[in-house]
Amino acid sequence: MAAFRLGARAVEGGRFQANGGGMASSRLLTPPKNPPNREEVALRGKPRSNHLAAAAKLRRRAGPMPLWRVAVFASVALNVATLALLLYHYAAPPHHFAADNHHHHQHSRLTASSEGSLAAGARREDRTTMAPSTGKPAVTPDSVINLDHGDPTMFEAFWRETGDAAELVIPGWQTMSYFSDVTNVCWFLEPELDQLVRRLHRTVGNAAVDGYHVLVGTGSTQLFMAALYALSPDAAAAAEPISVVSTAPYYSSYPAVTDFLRSGLFRWAGDASSFEGDDYIELVCSPNNPDGTIREAVLASKPGGKTIHDLAYYWPQYTPITKKADHDIMLFTVSKSTGHAGTRIGWALVKDRAIAEKMTKFVELNTIGVSKDSQLRAAKVLAAVSDGYERSEAEARVGARAPRLFDFGRRKMVERWSMLRAAAAASGIFSLPEETSGFCNFTNETAATNPAFAWLRCYREDVDDCASFLRGHRILTRSGAQFGADPRYVRVSMLDRDDAFDIFVRRLSSLK
Amino acid sequence: MAAFRLGARAVEGGRFQANGGGMASSRLLTPPKNPPNREEVALRGKPRSNHLAAAAKLRRRAGPMPLWRVAVFASVALNVATLALLLYHYAAPPHHFAADNHHHHQHSRLTASSEGSLAAGARREDRTTMAPSTGKPAVTPDSVINLDHGDPTMFEAFWRETGDAAELVIPGWQTMSYFSDVTNVCWFLEPELDQLVRRLHRTVGNAAVDGYHVLVGTGSTQLFMAALYALSPDAAAAAEPISVVSTAPYYSSYPAVTDFLRSGLFRWAGDASSFEGDDYIELVCSPNNPDGTIREAVLASKPGGKTIHDLAYYWPQYTPITKKADHDIMLFTVSKSTGHAGTRIGWALVKDRAIAEKMTKFVELNTIGVSKDSQLRAAKVLAAVSDGYERSEAEARVGARAPRLFDFGRRKMVERWSMLRAAAAASGIFSLPEETSGFCNFTNETAATNPAFAWLRCYREDVDDCASFLRGHRILTRSGAQFGADPRYVRVSMLDRDDAFDIFVRRLSSLK
Repeated sequence: MAAFRLGARAVEGGRFQANGGGMASSRLLTPPKNPPNREEVALRGKPRSNHLAAAAKLRRRAGPMPLWRVAVFASVALNVATLALLLYHYAAPPHHFAADNHHHHQHSRLTASSEGSLAAGARREDRTTMAPSTGKPAVTPDSVINLDHGDPTMFEAFWRETGDAAELVIPGWQTMSYFSDVTNVCWFLEPELDQLVRRLHRTVGNAAVDGYHVLVGTGSTQLFMAALYALSPDAAAAAEPISVVSTAPYYSSYPAVTDFLRSGLFRWAGDASSFEGDDYIELVCSPNNPDGTIREAVLASKPGGKTIHDLAYYWPQYTPITKKADHDIMLFTVSKSTGHAGTRIGWALVKDRAIAEKMTKFVELNTIGVSKDSQLRAAKVLAAVSDGYERSEAEARVGARAPRLFDFGRRKMVERWSMLRAAAAASGIFSLPEETSGFCNFTNETAATNPAFAWLRCYREDVDDCASFLRGHRILTRSGAQFGADPRYVRVSMLDRDDAFDIFVRRLSSLK
Repeated sequence: MAAFRLGARAVEGGRFQANGGGMASSRLLTPPKNPPNREEVALRGKPRSNHLAAAAKLRRRAGPMPLWRVAVFASVALNVATLALLLYHYAAPPHHFAADNHHHHQHSRLTASSEGSLAAGARREDRTTMAPSTGKPAVTPDSVINLDHGDPTMFEAFWRETGDAAELVIPGWQTMSYFSDVTNVCWFLEPELDQLVRRLHRTVGNAAVDGYHVLVGTGSTQLFMAALYALSPDAAAAAEPISVVSTAPYYSSYPAVTDFLRSGLFRWAGDASSFEGDDYIELVCSPNNPDGTIREAVLASKPGGKTIHDLAYYWPQYTPITKKADHDIMLFTVSKSTGHAGTRIGWALVKDRAIAEKMTKFVELNTIGVSKDSQLRAAKVLAAVSDGYERSEAEARVGARAPRLFDFGRRKMVERWSMLRAAAAASGIFSLPEETSGFCNFTNETAATNPAFAWLRCYREDVDDCASFLRGHRILTRSGAQFGADPRYVRVSMLDRDDAFDIFVRRLSSLK
């Protein structure tokens, strides 16, 4: 009897949750106003009396009820109640809701107008997911296609397919402290992330991890600044800022990030290949941003110099894994390996403890550590990536879903570069870097490079500034001038969503 | 009998999860390797045959079984099965596990050794929560009590009580883009967080929001640097860095964060009350860190000056809300309002659009925006706080849980300050700032100030350095010297967990 009531409450709860799931932001502030239906009222109000009445009727007709019949009624009632509770659990899982691509603006208006009308129901509804933004607005065949930034939304399709393998739940009371592991050099690094970074590198074989400190940053951009800070001579020891150099074409952010605070510790000094000083910090990005080439340090022979290796693109989807990198300082980022740019997590593998400590100090002063929520998110994602390549035989047999990120990524990049080369050929006024290849130790086969950016050059006589030319055709790219190169070059993102890329390729092929 | 066996399996399942919760990281990578026990085998292999056997026996004895009896057996079997499933759900809920304060080191060792042994079972188990760290290690009556940092773990108790009201679920494919709202000045600000910041300020009445831009940062520390960057003259325009000043005692991080990069744009210039230049940036922290006093700008009359207001502690738990602040630049942080320091989210209310744009540019160059996962977490938490103060009449009647953060916080702070004052009095060698009070518009009553830090002074003749003196008694504090004040002062955190605070107060009262 009581079981029936429980069952009814569960059913109502179940439907209540389901309604909440369909309108993401309204779940936050607008309470659902379902009037209870007749069945619910009946269940809620009457089960005991119904059962008792029925039992009473039976008794009046047939004398004291046989124990069997009582048992039947009781167990059927119990069945129904427990089945209802089970259905509630399965029908209203808190983990899933559909994000709406177009409505974040409307979300804002809804929440603003509903501010005062909160009720316990709404609170239960938005108990689970928030309504996050969804990146750049969707494109149409006529819209401006913005491929200036390497926004890695290409990977969204992969992660949608993984279901809840990379889903993260954070209870309200977790991750509140500033501290993660006070005994570690990087005291704000979540131990789980530390382990999963090492695990992923062991799986892919792209970097050595034994004997290295793992440091975390709010993106590898922050770790780049941290490394400059750590490698600069102490403020008292140096009269002049140390020179920061990289071989052109170099990543456009390197000069901008190095110089925006006019630090007295380090200063951008341009192209490494023409550098003539004794003390320097050389940045080596390999595969390179913007042109995808495999790079090595060019100034390594000078004694006063130090090197930072930015290996953001050293993953199987972009290039064959030809060796296990083992440089003194290696930077990686979730943005380009898994596509979770919005999470803002990068990591550094650092050999020297003193440098690791100084880099940690930078992040402490800059942002008092790195968000633990983001670290846990990154850990979950990295775990899902590694899982995909460590599937057991048993799982393979039953066809258990084991998403393989690098397979997806490489397939996508091969496809897109093929489309792009065809479009450039059809157009006739553009050239692209030659394709190179190498033996990939991860996939055990020869593989081509498929860089994350296309380093596109325009050969039309009357075009000096390719970025302007393309902007006139509603394609936004980043001018080669920002990379220390000729403005006839542009850098084009290969990582955007399918619709944007398709429109870009189509438009490019039509340019003459 | 079958019920007993199923119950046993559920209990074991529950116990396993409880174990998994106790050794958090093992749930992630160590597959459960419990050999099935006798009961499990019995359950898995035999329930049906037992029932059927029993039914068969009955049949042999009594001829064709009456429908009632079949029904009884069937429904009892169904009962038992569904009850077992329910017990499994309740005994092993994916959202709750007991954080274990002592085991994160062991966590690391476990996961390192188990890297290769992942199985689908473990994957399903860690499908939901990751095992996060839990801050500083737990204290014992003899351990060192570290109250040097304002680690706000006092608030954990509150958030545990809110259940899942502030729980966040992030599907694997969300928040991947760099971009949040490309039409907003702060293009990486999640619209939900924007709305909820404004909502909270309207609810509490501590700051004006109409006509302000909301900017987000990785903690208010990052926004402090961003404001310095935005308020500094353009690099070309100024030969010297602009002076950054604040009235002593000032927050120890101000000089450290201002100067660690030796920026050519801004430079720390000490105590505002003795500043004599024309151009400056004045930092006003109110209530002040470290001494809790209510502050105003002291240099406001000079035309070349600009002011940054750090209102991290301007919340009801620390001080009466006497007016709605409406300064040009106001900084707030989740760390001190809700206690979620590990999330690393702060926000700025900025009147001037050009300044808002430049601050946004700083965060773009420093960390390419702010983690969306952290923003969504903060939004969820802020929503729960606002919800607590917008409970409907109906909810109040049925006693629906409506956690009221500031009630909890104020009660806690009043209690702790009372304990601290009693302990200082019992000791006889310490003094504390006088209590002040004012009319709080939020609670509509007169309230005292209960600062987040105790600005403790030692009066023993032979103690010049209070921090050293206390360190000798295994209490870690931050010396007044770091705040531009006399080293006879120390700053002591009032925000740590109960156990740490209790031990501190007890030890303090015994010092003579």
